[in-house]
Amino acid sequence: MVQATSLPRNEAGIKTVLGILKQRFGGQFHTGQAICEQHGHTTTYIENQAPDAVVFPRSVAEVCEIIKTCAAHKVPVIPYGTGTSLEGHVNAPAGGISVDVTEMNQILAVNASDLDCVVQPGVTREDLNTYLRDQGLFFPIDPGANASLGGMTATRASGTNAVRYGTMKDNVIALQVVMPDGEVIRTAQRARKSSAGYDLTRLMVGSEGTLGLITEITLRLQGIPEAISAASCSFPSVDAACRAVMTTIQYGVPVARIELLDETCVKAVNAYSKLSLPETPLLLLEFHGSDAGVKEQAETFGGIAEEFGGEKFVMTTSTEERNAMWKARHDLYWAVMQIRPGCKGIATDVCVPISRLAECVTAAQDKAAELGLLSPVVGHVGDGNFHCTPLVDMEDKAEVARADEFIGWLNDLAISMDGTCTGEHGIGQGKRPYLQKELGPATKVMAAIKMALDPEGIMNPGKIL
Amino acid sequence: MVQATSLPRNEAGIKTVLGILKQRFGGQFHTGQAICEQHGHTTTYIENQAPDAVVFPRSVAEVCEIIKTCAAHKVPVIPYGTGTSLEGHVNAPAGGISVDVTEMNQILAVNASDLDCVVQPGVTREDLNTYLRDQGLFFPIDPGANASLGGMTATRASGTNAVRYGTMKDNVIALQVVMPDGEVIRTAQRARKSSAGYDLTRLMVGSEGTLGLITEITLRLQGIPEAISAASCSFPSVDAACRAVMTTIQYGVPVARIELLDETCVKAVNAYSKLSLPETPLLLLEFHGSDAGVKEQAETFGGIAEEFGGEKFVMTTSTEERNAMWKARHDLYWAVMQIRPGCKGIATDVCVPISRLAECVTAAQDKAAELGLLSPVVGHVGDGNFHCTPLVDMEDKAEVARADEFIGWLNDLAISMDGTCTGEHGIGQGKRPYLQKELGPATKVMAAIKMALDPEGIMNPGKIL
Repeated sequence: MVQATSLPRNEAGIKTVLGILKQRFGGQFHTGQAICEQHGHTTTYIENQAPDAVVFPRSVAEVCEIIKTCAAHKVPVIPYGTGTSLEGHVNAPAGGISVDVTEMNQILAVNASDLDCVVQPGVTREDLNTYLRDQGLFFPIDPGANASLGGMTATRASGTNAVRYGTMKDNVIALQVVMPDGEVIRTAQRARKSSAGYDLTRLMVGSEGTLGLITEITLRLQGIPEAISAASCSFPSVDAACRAVMTTIQYGVPVARIELLDETCVKAVNAYSKLSLPETPLLLLEFHGSDAGVKEQAETFGGIAEEFGGEKFVMTTSTEERNAMWKARHDLYWAVMQIRPGCKGIATDVCVPISRLAECVTAAQDKAAELGLLSPVVGHVGDGNFHCTPLVDMEDKAEVARADEFIGWLNDLAISMDGTCTGEHGIGQGKRPYLQKELGPATKVMAAIKMALDPEGIMNPGKIL
Repeated sequence: MVQATSLPRNEAGIKTVLGILKQRFGGQFHTGQAICEQHGHTTTYIENQAPDAVVFPRSVAEVCEIIKTCAAHKVPVIPYGTGTSLEGHVNAPAGGISVDVTEMNQILAVNASDLDCVVQPGVTREDLNTYLRDQGLFFPIDPGANASLGGMTATRASGTNAVRYGTMKDNVIALQVVMPDGEVIRTAQRARKSSAGYDLTRLMVGSEGTLGLITEITLRLQGIPEAISAASCSFPSVDAACRAVMTTIQYGVPVARIELLDETCVKAVNAYSKLSLPETPLLLLEFHGSDAGVKEQAETFGGIAEEFGGEKFVMTTSTEERNAMWKARHDLYWAVMQIRPGCKGIATDVCVPISRLAECVTAAQDKAAELGLLSPVVGHVGDGNFHCTPLVDMEDKAEVARADEFIGWLNDLAISMDGTCTGEHGIGQGKRPYLQKELGPATKVMAAIKMALDPEGIMNPGKIL
């Protein structure tokens, strides 16, 4: 595990708050070591910093009570969804109270005519999509994990569909938020667009629980397309695959998903999912539209792929075949873990302008090889976003140090290419130094906003800034 | 003219700053009455509040100098683009310096492979599109006026294409901003998406010059579609037209434009543009895609329109016919002015969830009639956004009062329908009371951010809050 910095603890305040919350919340309040560690420990590679207690509110009124209590005694509040974030977002470096929104899991309204819905933060994206299915609607953002919509909002999540449908910033219409002083605000109305004042919705999206706790989310929905087709195509090199992606985007093909797997990933997928794909870089695609439209899109892509040496182009409109393909993609994390059992996969996340993508991915592969790291690459390449996942023996200090060097080098490279140190995972604890490198003076403005809205620094301390 | 509140003037500071800027900026600095009034007076219905001087910086360094000088002496800075805003955004209620960015009009980079560009704030949208045309690219946001891109960013503009391409919030990738203390920040890198810290880009988009002055804008571009088709269709009622729009959106037809004109507008257009459209509510549409795609989209719409009693459905792929149609739409403001010469058109702007659109438009028409106002309606109806433009004899105090009553009533109605008091025009001076009604407690958070970033309140005082 990678060490995380601890922050000073307000022992007296914490003791008082534990007493008050225990009294008030009874069975919704827990201080057991296992549950506390589970709420600090997540899919992150960063060491566990458990909160002092976990509380499960059932309403916005209960969230207000918790935050007001913590504010009165200057005790940290750490919002918790499903714990699938990757950069130590739910750690408690100064202790405090983890506020788990699992029980705030109601779908409050589906406005089919307006293509929107209102949900509580504990609803997961799969729950929502299951609920919506028979109304012919879906919520497109798919970060892989079955994350809570509150957490996805707080980390500005995106994933495989973002190339067509955008990220959480594009799909959240309005929020209800409990602010650090316990006041409840609504950031916007339900209208599809607005110029009414500062865009607090977008300020809260991606604020990682450091400016308030999200208690209600109004989301944009999409109609399930009339037709969906999927395609896969193998390429002689990452460079060729990236160039095919760039051309496809430039042609304006409204591709819904376009994912890159490098050779190592393809080998892992073949082994894990019992497939026999050519073991060269692979693109997986999905197209949404009318029957004629998805056929046309796939054919246009097929033509482009050919230009760049694409081979084994396969197109399907069969739901079964498509699901099998995306199942293999979603299982990739587990497939990759099987290559080197017992190791930890440290999922990094950078995003560069698409014109620099081939160069960046290739350089990352070379650097990993130079450092003797096994580091498969998978990417939401339509956005220029990709993940290297060095598989690291966490007991081997020298290897951990090399992985650390690699991640630092990759973030610096992406930033030097006018890219970002995080396309979708967020800053949390792990990426704080890179945020400073990336945006420098702008981080002072972020700090001024944090200070204005949370002067005591109780909301998720030690994250982002 | 409608009166605007004046704010206390810092006479000593203003005098000092005028002296310093005159010395430093020579021919770029003006204090003539005409130019000052022209910089306060805009297309707004609100009375003119002229700045004390106008300065034309040519670089970000010059903007820094101006803002640092004003900050040192606590003198207001009013950013100015083309002055086409509608709610008194460029008025100077406490005097101060209008900073006109007209001479910062360079297109700094076009990254065709990344579908983005970097521009200075004085570049207008038409200039940009002219420049881009031979690269097969375009910038889609079209608010009607040939506004500056800095101004469009500052007011979170949108317009006819927003239903497909979103608003400025969706199309600005990054900004360079001179903050109220004269520090320069960059809000993001050029990558297409990012989760790196608070979304300062979106905070600045729509902040109306109250948090800083935008000196560089990185914009998302689109490839010019392979094919464009346009269509028009007449409907028996506003209700029928709105229902056709709602169904079209629900079907997932990726319509690029879908504009509503009510009977009064159609009559005005017929007279002004020498057309002979049926004088009933009219929808104008545009479709972007492949040859087959735009045909399919238009046909799908045609089928939907028929269901709702649509008549005289005309579809064209001729560029000339399409341009003539949109020219008539763009000339609508002038056409409408001809109905009642000598009157002022007070363009209002509300946006509601699309399921409430028919009800809201119809109620607005009834209310205007009840108040004896001539108030044509035009709408970007795919977003639920529409404008009533009461034609008012500004000399007739009773009529002005009735128009004022109408506007207040309409804003309240939109807010009561979970809509907003402004879909795209912004708050400026004119909509401040409605912002309070719409977002209540959230405006306190906005005020805290304003106070944190601009503690002396020098940036565009008297706007938004």
